[in-house]
Amino acid sequence: MNGFLGEFMGTMILIILGTGCGASVNLKKNYGHASNWLFITIAWGMAVSFGVYVAASLGSQGHLNPAVTLALAAFRKFPAGQVVPYLAGQFLGAFVGAAVVALHFYPQFKATKADEGNCVGIFTTGPAIKNNLFNFLSEMIATFVFIFCLINLGDFTQGLKPLIVGLLIMVVGQALGGTTGFALNPARDFAPRLAYSILPIPNKGAANWSYAWVPILGPICGGLLAVFLKTLI
Amino acid sequence: MNGFLGEFMGTMILIILGTGCGASVNLKKNYGHASNWLFITIAWGMAVSFGVYVAASLGSQGHLNPAVTLALAAFRKFPAGQVVPYLAGQFLGAFVGAAVVALHFYPQFKATKADEGNCVGIFTTGPAIKNNLFNFLSEMIATFVFIFCLINLGDFTQGLKPLIVGLLIMVVGQALGGTTGFALNPARDFAPRLAYSILPIPNKGAANWSYAWVPILGPICGGLLAVFLKTLI
Amino acid sequence: MNGFLGEFMGTMILIILGTGCGASVNLKKNYGHASNWLFITIAWGMAVSFGVYVAASLGSQGHLNPAVTLALAAFRKFPAGQVVPYLAGQFLGAFVGAAVVALHFYPQFKATKADEGNCVGIFTTGPAIKNNLFNFLSEMIATFVFIFCLINLGDFTQGLKPLIVGLLIMVVGQALGGTTGFALNPARDFAPRLAYSILPIPNKGAANWSYAWVPILGPICGGLLAVFLKTLI
Amino acid sequence: MNGFLGEFMGTMILIILGTGCGASVNLKKNYGHASNWLFITIAWGMAVSFGVYVAASLGSQGHLNPAVTLALAAFRKFPAGQVVPYLAGQFLGAFVGAAVVALHFYPQFKATKADEGNCVGIFTTGPAIKNNLFNFLSEMIATFVFIFCLINLGDFTQGLKPLIVGLLIMVVGQALGGTTGFALNPARDFAPRLAYSILPIPNKGAANWSYAWVPILGPICGGLLAVFLKTLI
Repeated sequence: MNGFLGEFMGTMILIILGTGCGASVNLKKNYGHASNWLFITIAWGMAVSFGVYVAASLGSQGHLNPAVTLALAAFRKFPAGQVVPYLAGQFLGAFVGAAVVALHFYPQFKATKADEGNCVGIFTTGPAIKNNLFNFLSEMIATFVFIFCLINLGDFTQGLKPLIVGLLIMVVGQALGGTTGFALNPARDFAPRLAYSILPIPNKGAANWSYAWVPILGPICGGLLAVFLKTLI
Repeated sequence: MNGFLGEFMGTMILIILGTGCGASVNLKKNYGHASNWLFITIAWGMAVSFGVYVAASLGSQGHLNPAVTLALAAFRKFPAGQVVPYLAGQFLGAFVGAAVVALHFYPQFKATKADEGNCVGIFTTGPAIKNNLFNFLSEMIATFVFIFCLINLGDFTQGLKPLIVGLLIMVVGQALGGTTGFALNPARDFAPRLAYSILPIPNKGAANWSYAWVPILGPICGGLLAVFLKTLI
Repeated sequence: MNGFLGEFMGTMILIILGTGCGASVNLKKNYGHASNWLFITIAWGMAVSFGVYVAASLGSQGHLNPAVTLALAAFRKFPAGQVVPYLAGQFLGAFVGAAVVALHFYPQFKATKADEGNCVGIFTTGPAIKNNLFNFLSEMIATFVFIFCLINLGDFTQGLKPLIVGLLIMVVGQALGGTTGFALNPARDFAPRLAYSILPIPNKGAANWSYAWVPILGPICGGLLAVFLKTLI
Repeated sequence: MNGFLGEFMGTMILIILGTGCGASVNLKKNYGHASNWLFITIAWGMAVSFGVYVAASLGSQGHLNPAVTLALAAFRKFPAGQVVPYLAGQFLGAFVGAAVVALHFYPQFKATKADEGNCVGIFTTGPAIKNNLFNFLSEMIATFVFIFCLINLGDFTQGLKPLIVGLLIMVVGQALGGTTGFALNPARDFAPRLAYSILPIPNKGAANWSYAWVPILGPICGGLLAVFLKTLI
């Protein structure tokens, strides 16, 4: 069960810190309101770093991301029997993390109308220009770059390597995240979208489910491509 | 006495650097005036890093925070006889640190009226939306996340780990600090509030004592919960 | 072939992340639009870090830059037989990286006219004040500082050293990049300029070929000077 | 002579990167114009990091600062015979560094009038509120905090410690630099002031020599106090 536990707690921390930043930037009457893209990319980067530290400390490999787990299972001998516990931990941890953020910012959600920033973009991603093909390509390319770099870092849970992983997420967001909001991770997008959709959050807007397949399939394809390429060369 | 000395000097450095940043952002006629939330969270993070370096170098464990000390005493065998020296060092160090900042920025305090930024928020925290229950929950959740990650870092005083602790404070502030200003630490909030209240600072505003219990009890509860959970799993 | 492969993949990653940031800042309808110089220097710095990680992991020395390769070949016994494979990897990798960015941001290129930011500056550098002599000197000085620091870091591919290399690029950009946009690297400037020039990018502006010699000769001269000076002292 | 050489080259790099950032922020028609206080503090921090790397690589202890050298000579057995070579290297290196920046930004100096930002503040420090006593105290306090933390880091030239030194400079600037511009270092202030004063820089303003004693005496007193205190405890 260590794999489940580590992925659950690590992804929970990742999503508390990442979507907490999203809430802070979007919701009115809090000190981080209207912070810029640099702020958002730094916070998401460090969110991943501490998710990895926590997951690794509790006994998982610190994937926090089904696109990583599936690609490693497909091409790098990650044990097939661990795939389901890892993915379960990732999706459940992400859901609980989003719920914690909904509670933490409850007065701010009450103070912010849907058209003022109380939107699904706090919790999840959406395209700057809606275009199914290019949105999918964008998530695939960004995740390819992320995971290809990641697997060239060696064991990324040791020493200060989780910090490097966080900086990788940061720069991928800065370089390639402007188009779709850099989900890079099916659990990071789907579970918080579900949380926003079903939790009793005041004034909330639409959950934009029609877009939800993009940040699931794009990252999975990008991750498979990255690990496959690494296996070839 | 090493525990007292390390906590005293480390917390003094933490508060000089942290509330110094608060003074810089809030007071007129200084070069850091009106810097943004990213700036504030980076500075507070690094303030903690160097507080930990100094404390560890002088012989304490670098808690700098009663919420850490009490939780480790409750659930992780931190010696009971060290609790009072640690807490004394933390509160005294924080008071002296705030006094140094009051001296450093004396001309700026003279140049800034209470309604222009010469406020207790330079030294201490306050809620963006006043709500006793949610302000308490907010400090409890943010401190839970901080201390749960912290105790999964291993010995955080060695090598470059104090830098990682600082980045943890930074991202917790970015993600969860927008609601109440992320005290996360009873000594960090109470002692500088006392300093602002009793020192002869020109033009000063109210010390907002009615809020002072929140950043004391919230962080203590969050810290206890984090270390208790870590003990369970 | 490891040298070619490492330089190709590492420079591709460098240019995807670096010119991706350029696209994000310049093109309309993406979340990073109009980010500031701090953002740009951080992203280019980290782009180099992860380029070095990838290149070193695949078996090259992580130069990613003809100015580094040529200077080390001239004065530090870098094997002459590796110069051509290294340079080929650098230029080809930079071209492919720029093409990936053109694809990634295709809808944004379509949405941005040439006079609105769809310009060669996304992919490559240009002077803030056009002056052949001083633009050349500026690239020479900045590259001298970069490469002189670089060769005083020891083996910069090990451990966390690639992060330090990235921070070096960042600060060189902050301090000396404002004049010409800190190419520092002939491959980083020439190949993306060529890509912008020949790829079917919608609405694109001029490629400014008359300036292209500056970010080729300036960095090569600066690099030779830096390594020669290090050899002397 | 290694002490002289290391301090000369290290301080030259420090001042090229630091005052280069000052030129970039202040002078018109360059891409870093009007960057904010966060940018300035990050750049000065990293300027120090790479100065230390270079100095240590060339055989000095990486002081780059007479306030460090004098305090270590007074209280920590730094060899008296090395004081003059170290100080000579620091002042000469800082002068040459400033001259390089004057050359690098020559077209920008020509494009910027004295009242538009072509001022001594590019190269050196000045108070936000002129007050001899408090300006002196401010430099003394900030340098005390800097050097007290520095000597608690252990050997700060090894491994990634120069990065930590840079982050220390950054946060001291963020917290305490807003009052006087955080000289912290007599060589860093005096030699670039002299360079601005005597070099043929177009359109230049006044060198403000009446203030020059503050960033010499303040840092020396702060450094002595810091090392003396460390010796006591």
